[in-house]
Amino acid sequence: MIFVGFGFLMTFLKRYSFGGVGFNFLIAAFGLQWALLMQGWFHWLDADGKIRIGIENLINADFCVAGCLIAYGALLGKVSPVQLMVLTLFGITLFAVEEFIILSVIHARDAGGSMVIHTFGGYYGLSVSWMLYRPNLHQSSRLQGSVYHSDVFAMIGTLFLWMFWPSFNSAICDHGDGQHRAAINTYLCLASTVLTTVAISSLFQKHGKLDMVHIQNSTLAGGVAAGTAAEFMLMPYGCLIVGFCCGIISTLGYIFLTPFMEKHLKIQDTCGIHNLHAMPGVVGGIVGAITAASASVEVYGHEGLANTFDFEGKFKDMVPTTQGGHQAAGLCVALCFGIGGGIIVGAILRLPIWGDPADDNCFDDETYWEVPEEEESIPTILQYNNHVQNKDIAESNFTMESESRARS
Amino acid sequence: MIFVGFGFLMTFLKRYSFGGVGFNFLIAAFGLQWALLMQGWFHWLDADGKIRIGIENLINADFCVAGCLIAYGALLGKVSPVQLMVLTLFGITLFAVEEFIILSVIHARDAGGSMVIHTFGGYYGLSVSWMLYRPNLHQSSRLQGSVYHSDVFAMIGTLFLWMFWPSFNSAICDHGDGQHRAAINTYLCLASTVLTTVAISSLFQKHGKLDMVHIQNSTLAGGVAAGTAAEFMLMPYGCLIVGFCCGIISTLGYIFLTPFMEKHLKIQDTCGIHNLHAMPGVVGGIVGAITAASASVEVYGHEGLANTFDFEGKFKDMVPTTQGGHQAAGLCVALCFGIGGGIIVGAILRLPIWGDPADDNCFDDETYWEVPEEEESIPTILQYNNHVQNKDIAESNFTMESESRARS
Amino acid sequence: MIFVGFGFLMTFLKRYSFGGVGFNFLIAAFGLQWALLMQGWFHWLDADGKIRIGIENLINADFCVAGCLIAYGALLGKVSPVQLMVLTLFGITLFAVEEFIILSVIHARDAGGSMVIHTFGGYYGLSVSWMLYRPNLHQSSRLQGSVYHSDVFAMIGTLFLWMFWPSFNSAICDHGDGQHRAAINTYLCLASTVLTTVAISSLFQKHGKLDMVHIQNSTLAGGVAAGTAAEFMLMPYGCLIVGFCCGIISTLGYIFLTPFMEKHLKIQDTCGIHNLHAMPGVVGGIVGAITAASASVEVYGHEGLANTFDFEGKFKDMVPTTQGGHQAAGLCVALCFGIGGGIIVGAILRLPIWGDPADDNCFDDETYWEVPEEEESIPTILQYNNHVQNKDIAESNFTMESESRARS
Repeated sequence: MIFVGFGFLMTFLKRYSFGGVGFNFLIAAFGLQWALLMQGWFHWLDADGKIRIGIENLINADFCVAGCLIAYGALLGKVSPVQLMVLTLFGITLFAVEEFIILSVIHARDAGGSMVIHTFGGYYGLSVSWMLYRPNLHQSSRLQGSVYHSDVFAMIGTLFLWMFWPSFNSAICDHGDGQHRAAINTYLCLASTVLTTVAISSLFQKHGKLDMVHIQNSTLAGGVAAGTAAEFMLMPYGCLIVGFCCGIISTLGYIFLTPFMEKHLKIQDTCGIHNLHAMPGVVGGIVGAITAASASVEVYGHEGLANTFDFEGKFKDMVPTTQGGHQAAGLCVALCFGIGGGIIVGAILRLPIWGDPADDNCFDDETYWEVPEEEESIPTILQYNNHVQNKDIAESNFTMESESRARS
Repeated sequence: MIFVGFGFLMTFLKRYSFGGVGFNFLIAAFGLQWALLMQGWFHWLDADGKIRIGIENLINADFCVAGCLIAYGALLGKVSPVQLMVLTLFGITLFAVEEFIILSVIHARDAGGSMVIHTFGGYYGLSVSWMLYRPNLHQSSRLQGSVYHSDVFAMIGTLFLWMFWPSFNSAICDHGDGQHRAAINTYLCLASTVLTTVAISSLFQKHGKLDMVHIQNSTLAGGVAAGTAAEFMLMPYGCLIVGFCCGIISTLGYIFLTPFMEKHLKIQDTCGIHNLHAMPGVVGGIVGAITAASASVEVYGHEGLANTFDFEGKFKDMVPTTQGGHQAAGLCVALCFGIGGGIIVGAILRLPIWGDPADDNCFDDETYWEVPEEEESIPTILQYNNHVQNKDIAESNFTMESESRARS
Repeated sequence: MIFVGFGFLMTFLKRYSFGGVGFNFLIAAFGLQWALLMQGWFHWLDADGKIRIGIENLINADFCVAGCLIAYGALLGKVSPVQLMVLTLFGITLFAVEEFIILSVIHARDAGGSMVIHTFGGYYGLSVSWMLYRPNLHQSSRLQGSVYHSDVFAMIGTLFLWMFWPSFNSAICDHGDGQHRAAINTYLCLASTVLTTVAISSLFQKHGKLDMVHIQNSTLAGGVAAGTAAEFMLMPYGCLIVGFCCGIISTLGYIFLTPFMEKHLKIQDTCGIHNLHAMPGVVGGIVGAITAASASVEVYGHEGLANTFDFEGKFKDMVPTTQGGHQAAGLCVALCFGIGGGIIVGAILRLPIWGDPADDNCFDDETYWEVPEEEESIPTILQYNNHVQNKDIAESNFTMESESRARS
C-alpha cells in the first residue's frame, strides 16, 4: 500500500514521475530495514540480545517509513537521492524515539498515527524544506506542473490510499471491536471529506471548475484526521463532522496557504503536505484529545474503557480526562520532534556535499535518471521533411537561378 | 475495488479521464453515505431507532453504489456533476426498494447481484440515456475515442475488476461452502469469457485484429452473468458454457448492437453498458432461474439445499422449482425498476436547470476541470524552429535575389 | 496479482503496451483452464474419475501460468497470439510433469517456485527465443525502447509484484510458522535487493544516473531467489546477503550479459528474463540446497524439521544433508525441462504456419490490434503549417522570379 499509494501520488509532476515513484521505492526499502534495526535496538534491553522480527514489526516499520515518505513530499524534486537517504536515516531515528515517548512514556493512544506519523512527518518535511529554501526555484517553474496523464497516474495513488486507509488506521488496533470501529470511522470520515473537497474546490475556482490537485490530495485529509480517534467511539456524526472540517481546511490550504507559505514564510511545499498531512494531523490529535477526555463509562462500559485506552499496569487508575491531557501532550511532542528535528537535519542537508540539483534543474528527471527520448521520432521526421523541403526549395531556387541566369 | 476498478475502466476517453475517475469517486463517496442512511431507515421499524453500521452494511452500501456507477457508464461525458448527484440520489433509493422486494419479499437469491445490481443499473442508465438523447452529439465525436495511453489506463480498471470479481460475487454468500463455490464458479466463467471475447473480436474485425474496447469490457461479462448462480451448483462445465455465451453476446453487442441502438432506438451508450452489464445481467438472471429450478436433493443434499436457497422461516416448504419461478419474478422486478425508474429520473434530469454540457462540449474535461496545458511546449519549439528556418530560407532567397539582381 | 503485476511489467515498450497487457491476459486465462485440466488428469488415477477444483487448485494453476508468462517475457513483441497459445499449451504440460517430478518424485521443497517456476520458465523462454532467432530484428529497433509514460506504467507492475511477492512465496506454505517465515524472508530479500540495484545501477551508468529498466526489473530478483528457501530458517542476515547478491547479479546481467547474449549466443531476450527470473531462480535453487543441507535439529527442533521438510511417509528417515542433494537434483530437472522443452517447442514454433510478425513489424501493436490514431492532430497541423509555409515560399519565389524576370 505504501509503495503504490505514496509512490503514485507523487507522479503528478510533468517530468518527475520517475523520481516520484523511484525514490519513493528507494526510501521505503532503505527505511524498512533501518526501522527494523531501530525497533530491535530499542527493545534490546528487555530481550536476550537478539532482534525478533514478526509481522507486527513489519507493520510498525511500514509506519516509520510512512513518516519519511510524507516528509519527502515537501522536498519532491528539490533534493538528491543521497540527501533523501540522510533524511530517511535521521527521520526513522527521530521517529523511533518520538514514538517511544508518545506511546510508552506519555501513554497516548494513536492507532492511525495522526500525531506520531502525520504531524511529525509533515512538520519534519516542512522544517527541512524551510532550511533548504531556494530563492531562485522559479527558474524551474516551467516543470512544476502536471500534464494530463501524470494527473491520471496520481489518481491511482489517491484511490489506492483511499481504499486502504481504513485498513491502515485499523492495522495495529486491538482485534475485534476496536479494529472494526477504526475501519468504519475512517471510512465515514473519508467519504464526507470527498464531498466537501469537491464542493469547496468548485466554489473557489473560477467558473466553478474542479482542480485535480484538490481531488488528488484533500480527499485523503479525512483519513489523516481520523487516525488518533479512529478506535474511540467517535460516532458516525462525529466522523462526518471531522471529515467535513478537514475537507474545508485542506482545500482552502491548497488555495490560500501554500502560496502564502512559499511567499512569506519561505517554505516551498511541492506536494502540499502541510494541507494533506500536517494540518489534518494536528486536527486529528485535537479530536483525539477531546474524544478521549469526553469518554465515559456509560458509553464504553467499564471493560471497554480499559480495553480502548489500555488502562492497565501502572496506568490502571487513569481516568478519561487525564487521558485527554496525555493525548494533547503527545501532540506537542510530535510537533516539537517534527520542527526541531527538521531544523537540525535541514542544517546538515545544507552542507554542500550532497549533490543536490541546481535551481534550474529541479523537478527534472534528467538529473538523476536515464530518460527515454520520447519526442525523438517526431522531430526526426520533421527535420527530414524540412530537409527535403529545404532541398526542394534550394533546388527550385537553383533552377530558378539558372533560369534567371540563362535569361539574363 | 469499486473505486479503482470502475474508475479506471472509464478513463478510456481521450479527454475525459479526469471526469471518468473523478466523478466516479464523487458518486461513490456520496452514494455510500446515502446508501448507509437508506439501509438504516429501511430497517428502522424493527430496531430501536438507531442506525447500526457494521462491515456488512458497508459492503451492502458498496453494492448499492455499484448500480449507480454502472448507470453512469451510459451517460459518461454527457452529464454534469449535479445531474450525477441527482441520478445517484434517486438511483440508490430505487435500488434499496428494489433490493428489498427481490431479496426479502420475492425471496429470490442473488449473491453477485446479476439482477439486483447489473440488470437494474444497466437498464436504469440506458433509460436515462434515452430520455437525455442528444441528436447533435456527433459534434463531439472528435473526442469520443481513445488514445494509446488512455486505453492502457482502462486496462488497469479491467484487470482490477477481473481480479476482484470472484471476491465481489462471493462477498455476501454464506461463509464456507457457498463462498468457495461462488468464487470458483465466477473464476471459471471469467476465464472462459476472455478466450471467447478474443476469438470473436478477432473474427469480426478486418484483418483479424483485436479491438481494445472488447478486451476491456467484454472479458468481464462472464463475471456479471455468474452473479446470481454463483453460489449454486453450476458445475465447471456450466460455468464454461455461461462464460462462452456471454463472451459471444457481449462482443457481438459492441460490434452490432451499440451502433444499432444509437441510430434507431435513440439510446447513446458511451461505455457500452448494455453489452457489459444489462444483457449479461439478464443472462445471469435466467441462468440463475434455470439452475435453481433444476436443483435436486441428490446433488445438494437436504441440508445443502436448505442452506443454499435459505429455505427457512415462512419459506420452509419451498421446493427448487418454485424457487426458479421466484428467481424469474425477481428478474422482472429488476427490469421494471430499471426501465421505469430510469424514465422518471431521466424526465427530471431533462429540466434545463442542471448545467449539462452543450452538444459540442461533451466528452471534454475542459468543461468541469482545470486541465493542464499539455502540448504547450512542443508547438512552441516547433514554431521557433520553423521561424528560424523561414528566416534562413528568406535570407538565402534574399542573397540569391541580390545575386540575381547583381548578375542581371 | 499475476494479471496486474506481470501485465504491467510488460507495458514498458513504446508501442507494445496493448500486446504486453492484452496477450498476457489471454495467456493467463487460457493457461488457467488448461492447468486446471492438467492437474485434474494427473491426479485422476487416485480419484473417482472426477476433477475436483478448490481454492488450492486455483493457486496451483496460477503458479503454472506464471511459468508461461515468464517465458513470454523473452518473446515479447516477436510472436503471434497463436504462437503464444501453442507456447502456453506445451508450457503448462511440461510444467505439470516437471512439478510432479520435482515435488513428488524427488521430494524437493520449493514453496515460492524458484526452481519449479522461475528457472523452468526462464530457460524455457530463452530456448524458444534461441530457436526463433531473428537476425534482422534490428529493423524494428526504433520501437524497442520505452517512452516516459510507458515506463511509469511498468512501475505499476513492479510495485504490484513487489508488494505481493511475500504473499506469493508464502501462498502454499504450511499455515502458521512456515508461512510467516516465508513472508518475512521474502520481504527482507526484496528490501535489500532494491538498495543494491540502485547502487549498482548508479555505479555503472555514466554520470551516475539511474536506469529505469534496472529499477523496474532487478529490484524483484531478490524475491525470485528467496523462493525455494523462503520457508526455511534463512535468518535475516541470510536474506540480506541473498538479496544483495541478486541485486548485483541481476543489474550487471542487464548491463553486460543481455547485450552479450544477443550478439554472441543469438538469444534475443526482450524483457531480460534471464536477469530477472532465470539467474536468480538458479541462485534461489542453490541457496535452497545449501540451507536445506545445513539444517540441524538444534535450530529447527525435531518437530519443526519434520514439518518444514515434510519428512513423513516414505521420506520419514531422510536427513537434511540428503534433502540438500534432492534440492540440487530438483534444480537440474528444472533446467533440463526448461532447456529441452524450449528447444522442442521452439522447433515447432519455427514452422511457417503461425503468422508471426515480419522482422520490421516486431514490437508494434499495429500488427495485432486496432490502435487509436493518437498523433493525428499534431501532424495534421504541422503539415498544414508546412503547406502554408511552402506556399508562402513558393509565392515569394514566384514573386522574386517575376521580379528577376522583369528586371532581366
